[in-house]
Amino acid sequence: MAAYDKLVERFKKLHRLNHLSALATWDQAAMMPSGSNQARSEALAEMSTLTHELLTASEVGDWIEVAREESLDDLQKASLREMERQFEQTSVMPADLVKAKSLAASGCEHAWRSQRPENDWQGFSKNLEKVLKLTREEASIRSESSGVSPYDAMLELYEPGVNCQQLDTLFGDVKQWLPDYVQQATERHQSSHYEMPEGPFATDNLKALGQEVMTLLGFDFNRGRLDVSAHPFCGGVSEDVRITTRYRDNDFIESLMGVVHETGHARYEQNRPAETLGLPVSNGRSMGIHEGQSLFFEMQIGRSREFLALIRPLLLKHLTGGEELPAYQLNNLETIYRRVQPGFIRVEADEVTYPAHIILRYEIEKALISGDMTVSDLPDTWHEKMQQYLNLSTEGNYKDGCMQDIHWPLGAFGYFPSYTLGAMYAAQLFATIQNTIPDVHAKISSGELSVIFDWLKDNIWSQGSRYSTSELITRATGEDLNASFFKEHLKARYLTD
Amino acid sequence: MAAYDKLVERFKKLHRLNHLSALATWDQAAMMPSGSNQARSEALAEMSTLTHELLTASEVGDWIEVAREESLDDLQKASLREMERQFEQTSVMPADLVKAKSLAASGCEHAWRSQRPENDWQGFSKNLEKVLKLTREEASIRSESSGVSPYDAMLELYEPGVNCQQLDTLFGDVKQWLPDYVQQATERHQSSHYEMPEGPFATDNLKALGQEVMTLLGFDFNRGRLDVSAHPFCGGVSEDVRITTRYRDNDFIESLMGVVHETGHARYEQNRPAETLGLPVSNGRSMGIHEGQSLFFEMQIGRSREFLALIRPLLLKHLTGGEELPAYQLNNLETIYRRVQPGFIRVEADEVTYPAHIILRYEIEKALISGDMTVSDLPDTWHEKMQQYLNLSTEGNYKDGCMQDIHWPLGAFGYFPSYTLGAMYAAQLFATIQNTIPDVHAKISSGELSVIFDWLKDNIWSQGSRYSTSELITRATGEDLNASFFKEHLKARYLTD
Repeated sequence: MAAYDKLVERFKKLHRLNHLSALATWDQAAMMPSGSNQARSEALAEMSTLTHELLTASEVGDWIEVAREESLDDLQKASLREMERQFEQTSVMPADLVKAKSLAASGCEHAWRSQRPENDWQGFSKNLEKVLKLTREEASIRSESSGVSPYDAMLELYEPGVNCQQLDTLFGDVKQWLPDYVQQATERHQSSHYEMPEGPFATDNLKALGQEVMTLLGFDFNRGRLDVSAHPFCGGVSEDVRITTRYRDNDFIESLMGVVHETGHARYEQNRPAETLGLPVSNGRSMGIHEGQSLFFEMQIGRSREFLALIRPLLLKHLTGGEELPAYQLNNLETIYRRVQPGFIRVEADEVTYPAHIILRYEIEKALISGDMTVSDLPDTWHEKMQQYLNLSTEGNYKDGCMQDIHWPLGAFGYFPSYTLGAMYAAQLFATIQNTIPDVHAKISSGELSVIFDWLKDNIWSQGSRYSTSELITRATGEDLNASFFKEHLKARYLTD
Repeated sequence: MAAYDKLVERFKKLHRLNHLSALATWDQAAMMPSGSNQARSEALAEMSTLTHELLTASEVGDWIEVAREESLDDLQKASLREMERQFEQTSVMPADLVKAKSLAASGCEHAWRSQRPENDWQGFSKNLEKVLKLTREEASIRSESSGVSPYDAMLELYEPGVNCQQLDTLFGDVKQWLPDYVQQATERHQSSHYEMPEGPFATDNLKALGQEVMTLLGFDFNRGRLDVSAHPFCGGVSEDVRITTRYRDNDFIESLMGVVHETGHARYEQNRPAETLGLPVSNGRSMGIHEGQSLFFEMQIGRSREFLALIRPLLLKHLTGGEELPAYQLNNLETIYRRVQPGFIRVEADEVTYPAHIILRYEIEKALISGDMTVSDLPDTWHEKMQQYLNLSTEGNYKDGCMQDIHWPLGAFGYFPSYTLGAMYAAQLFATIQNTIPDVHAKISSGELSVIFDWLKDNIWSQGSRYSTSELITRATGEDLNASFFKEHLKARYLTD
């Protein structure tokens, strides 16, 4: 058997085993009773050890060496490149560092769950220092192996091919106009009037509404489900995608858009290339491209006036028993779904202020990894940047400031930029679709969404990781990622009558 | 490290990996959308190969050899014995026979799903012949290795220590009195009058009722769940037991008792000995003892007048909105839950006629394995025995006769006796409890069930597989399994005013 075929066999084996872990992780969040957590965590850790061994085994490195000399077609070459990337990124980390970081992170994250509500910066910072120290070690090892800077090496884990230089350019551009946009959009929102739909809403109705909207968006319920968890996510496997939401009996506004968002992730997963499924080359290209799909669904489609018009009859059907209430008028819904208001919390932020939260975190984590900043500098720097970007003070307010996110406690430095890259990808993709497909807006309001999704499927979803991120977006849109589409989108939606 | 400790490490690793398979199997039946079945089956097969390798690895045999000479306490000796039993039973089978049987069985079972409704005996019998041939090979290999007869070697898989000689005695006893009991009980039932509760019943109400009854029966919802599947079962793992039921909007009678039944299995699983959890010695002792717990819950407790009195207020609360309807009167409920009527289908059989279904299958499968019967004899023999035991003809009616069960298509010859052994264990355990705990019946009707369950926990559940089945039941009840308790139970319930 050719070395490449041996690699295919090994990675497909890993795919099958990861199926069970992905399902158990979904179940842990969506189904599992709390008393089972220890047994579940031990089972997942055992499997993680086992798949780590299978991925980093010395024969895998040998097969890669040999396969490089084999006669492969273009897709196989891309496939080998992605196998190699996974192998290198995983095997470069010494086992004792993996274990030490995993222990420090799970300890920090566990304590953070109670420290955050107590605003306990002293307790938290000690744990975070340990996680940061180990992440710096990690970044330094990855840097040596890949030849890029330590922070760039961390970025590589989430956004292959993206580096600080590119981010500085993109985010530098955004910083030029964002404060003004935020101010204008906030003022416009403050002078608007709207009425919130009143509950109580029965869970069964909210669920039926969510499922009907997912069906409209092309979610394949024959290979996926919608369930409930404390923090909504898209999990499971490509062949069985499990998305979650949460229901509140007095508010459907954000949870419904959350379902739209996760459906974007889900469709990307459900439409990965079948012919290479199980191999790394079939994976979603990057976290940014993944977020690009969810934000395309939520921001480009979901919050558009045309989409709100399309789903308005479903809202009436499931939530008012068909009655036309003022809060469900199209103009009112549109105003609600376009509120802009600077706030402390990233996950509650609107589309306009969100990039400020991300740029702040990007600048801080870059400095934390390079050593230009220490954990003890964090609260002051956070406060200064919040003042500068959103005119808010977090002095002494750690829980709504630098303690709000789970990412750093978990050691996921380098992840945050993906969110705003995703917003930019979404805007650039939609701009291209607008230029490619006639009457896109009319098609949205009449529910002819499949023409849009087919374009995404052809140009993004079915491409998996065949191309580099830059090549993928250039092939799809004619140019590399460019913040101007995002700027134009925000301007059209929030600053234009 | 001592060899015994290495074995402990290996079996705990298997326990953690089996956690993921058990969960995925539950999900496949209770949650999974049908389009995901192939990916799921492939994932489970991959894991099964992997755990098979870990269990049968040559070092495991070596460790067992060495551990036999190590200084072990009594519990460790029992633990080693159970490890050895799993190792021997698994490794004695040649890999190609395992694969051939698995393929033949899954092919036979898959075809059976459509052949049964079509009454297609010709098509089915060809597949069953292949499965039987491979099972005979299996039985012969197991027989050579263990020194018992081929059918006894198959029984060993489900009922360690039980053999044909014992079954012939137990079932021979039952055959003496059962036909008369069936006739008398049927006549008594036919002269009774009752009214069926009328639906429609909302699923949410049936579910809330089921959960409240499970709580009454001590199910730990902090380490388990109740969900829905086409065929009710008890799955998951000891630390996270997942039972299922199904709801019909016009009938709650059997599904409620199904929940009681599965709760019996569940409590056995939830109360396995914690100190050896993960090792074979903590497993339920046998399929018969397991069924003994579920039938204890269903037949000894669940269908008693006292238990029906206890749950009657819950039925009114969830199903009639509190209204006292005639169908919910205690006498009426008792009559419904004690209907006796010979029928074709084992899974629909009442407590009195059930053993006839089992004895028939036992006699046939024993002859099929020994070679005294062939698959082509099956329909005639089935018909003759049904006539003899239940006075029913299955001539030409294969689908309600010898094609009704999934066990033989799957190659699970030797399993059927466990059902009636379970009924006998349940009766013997309850008889002992009646002699041990004062006023048991009054305690049931007043809901003081924990004293009964604590006795089961101490005497059966917490013992795992520490003792042989015979020793376990003798320690608990003062004597080995004896059909007379079951006979007395049936007599008291069905033939006595």
